[in-house]
Amino acid sequence: MPVKTIEWLDGKVRIIDQTQLPTRLVYLDIQDPETMAEAIKSLRIRGAPAIGIAAAFGVVLGAYQFRGSDPTAFRRHVATVIEKLANTRPTAVNLFWALERMRRVLFFHQTEPVEEIRAKLLAEAQKILEEDKDTCRRMGYYGAQLLPDPATVLTHCNAGGLATADFGTALGVIYAAYEQGKRIRVFADETRPLLQGARLTAWELQASGIDVTVICDNMAAFLMQQGKIDCVLVGADRIARNGDVANKIGTYNLAVLAHYHKIPFYVVAPFSSFDLTLATGQQIPIEQRSPEEVTEGFGVRTAPPGVNAYNPAFDLTPHNLVTAIITEKGIIRPPFTKNIARLKNKA
Amino acid sequence: MPVKTIEWLDGKVRIIDQTQLPTRLVYLDIQDPETMAEAIKSLRIRGAPAIGIAAAFGVVLGAYQFRGSDPTAFRRHVATVIEKLANTRPTAVNLFWALERMRRVLFFHQTEPVEEIRAKLLAEAQKILEEDKDTCRRMGYYGAQLLPDPATVLTHCNAGGLATADFGTALGVIYAAYEQGKRIRVFADETRPLLQGARLTAWELQASGIDVTVICDNMAAFLMQQGKIDCVLVGADRIARNGDVANKIGTYNLAVLAHYHKIPFYVVAPFSSFDLTLATGQQIPIEQRSPEEVTEGFGVRTAPPGVNAYNPAFDLTPHNLVTAIITEKGIIRPPFTKNIARLKNKA
Repeated sequence: MPVKTIEWLDGKVRIIDQTQLPTRLVYLDIQDPETMAEAIKSLRIRGAPAIGIAAAFGVVLGAYQFRGSDPTAFRRHVATVIEKLANTRPTAVNLFWALERMRRVLFFHQTEPVEEIRAKLLAEAQKILEEDKDTCRRMGYYGAQLLPDPATVLTHCNAGGLATADFGTALGVIYAAYEQGKRIRVFADETRPLLQGARLTAWELQASGIDVTVICDNMAAFLMQQGKIDCVLVGADRIARNGDVANKIGTYNLAVLAHYHKIPFYVVAPFSSFDLTLATGQQIPIEQRSPEEVTEGFGVRTAPPGVNAYNPAFDLTPHNLVTAIITEKGIIRPPFTKNIARLKNKA
Repeated sequence: MPVKTIEWLDGKVRIIDQTQLPTRLVYLDIQDPETMAEAIKSLRIRGAPAIGIAAAFGVVLGAYQFRGSDPTAFRRHVATVIEKLANTRPTAVNLFWALERMRRVLFFHQTEPVEEIRAKLLAEAQKILEEDKDTCRRMGYYGAQLLPDPATVLTHCNAGGLATADFGTALGVIYAAYEQGKRIRVFADETRPLLQGARLTAWELQASGIDVTVICDNMAAFLMQQGKIDCVLVGADRIARNGDVANKIGTYNLAVLAHYHKIPFYVVAPFSSFDLTLATGQQIPIEQRSPEEVTEGFGVRTAPPGVNAYNPAFDLTPHNLVTAIITEKGIIRPPFTKNIARLKNKA
């Protein structure tokens, strides 16, 4: 990964404004939780692991924002900030997982002076970020074993360095295999409507010297039919107890195509993306975004004024279409309910 | 269909410049075959039946362009024009079918005076146009019988009035069912890279008062999973003897999805789109277009400079994924090889 997606810089959080890529590399220094909430909502920072980290640092910014020394007022203020950050995006569970960790710090240390709780909140956010780096490397290590040499991989959206604190989930596997000397070629779905594949995945793979070709989402089937794809690698925004996967809209499409063409379909995600409170994916809330992302997505009107558009940001892939889930603790294969539970408890 | 896609106006051909839709309705008056060839190549006029008609009128323009009265020089000139028009787009067979009809007129009347051959070429082009109108109505009639009431239909690209001289192939079926009073709702794939679905299909259905919702191509699977689609209706650029179908890129994607979700997948095409010289679709040439259509498709750079892009304009749907083919002579069901041959010979 050529750049840092998110970092803490002495009282402010520096992120890359991903809405400006690939034509401009713009950094934003965020100093308050409201700006962070807006950055998450408008996808300046996106990707399940990265928005967990961003939300955690948003809480820290809220803690720094507080003037005074009354612990009760402080706790109340930070709780409001957590609430605000939780209301940004509904699907990726990492957001709620990270905020829950911050809430726990607040709760466990509630009798301590404001200064100390603040320091502990910062330490927790930094820990979440550091853990994510380690997690990326581990997923990369396990996942790379699944790739043949040479391998042509199809990926969707951006599950790369820009979606995490390190080299990514799905793309982390590609980077790891590439570092091992495997000859890897990548087809990147452009991923309408917001083009994270064309804008972000192509950008970071190109910067890392990996052979990448952008395609429109509707071209994947034709490539598979021609035998050009060895496997599909995608990330996840939330995984239920039975292995059902919510991920960027278009993922289910690829899962059906991979199944039909007998191509392995791998999901790469840390345990922070698992929501074991949900028995199946049916209960995962699917974010609906503005129709204008479809009809005016490039600052250009591409559909007639007044026409309806449907814009779910995610879809649901049932576990029976998933070949394996690659986590930081190892590779999970079916039966998923049993094997997810077992691996979850592994140290 | 609210407007005329193509018409002959006293020495010139008036077409809608479809690259300007949906924001601007611009007519072009074309007076020479070179401009017509450019209009076909750059998709100012597109859709398999419409480019057949456009090419036929391009030949007429070439015939009008000729000065002099030497029949041999005339025939040589028109043959060159036919060659030029044949080299615009390789996949839709209607282009070659229409040019072959014009070539036949030229051949059969070669001993006649230039003026008379010219008149016969014009008459043939007008006949191709008139036949297409009739063909559209017949396909609409047969196809409408297959739609339940109410019906939610998914369509891809534009197989509508803008792709023909009348109300279209796939959309013709929708218009016919709508005229019969059936409650029809349409989801239109936007159809990357050139967005014929969002720009053209949405525009003409909206203008006709039909309930239409634009989606990105990667959302179709999610709609099918939710049980929201009753059938898929698409056009065709070329159909082989065994029922294999070449059509706009993304069609094969939908065919696999429809198969997986047990949704009928109907192809609507006139016999002029059948190429019975080809045993299977494998021999159909697939046009490759410029990568910039993918990476700069909206006048906006959507992928990093220098990145590779793959841009096949069509794909191939094998006949086993096709539920039925709706033609002007009736509905063809499997086994296709036998039933296509049989219906072909019907008066």
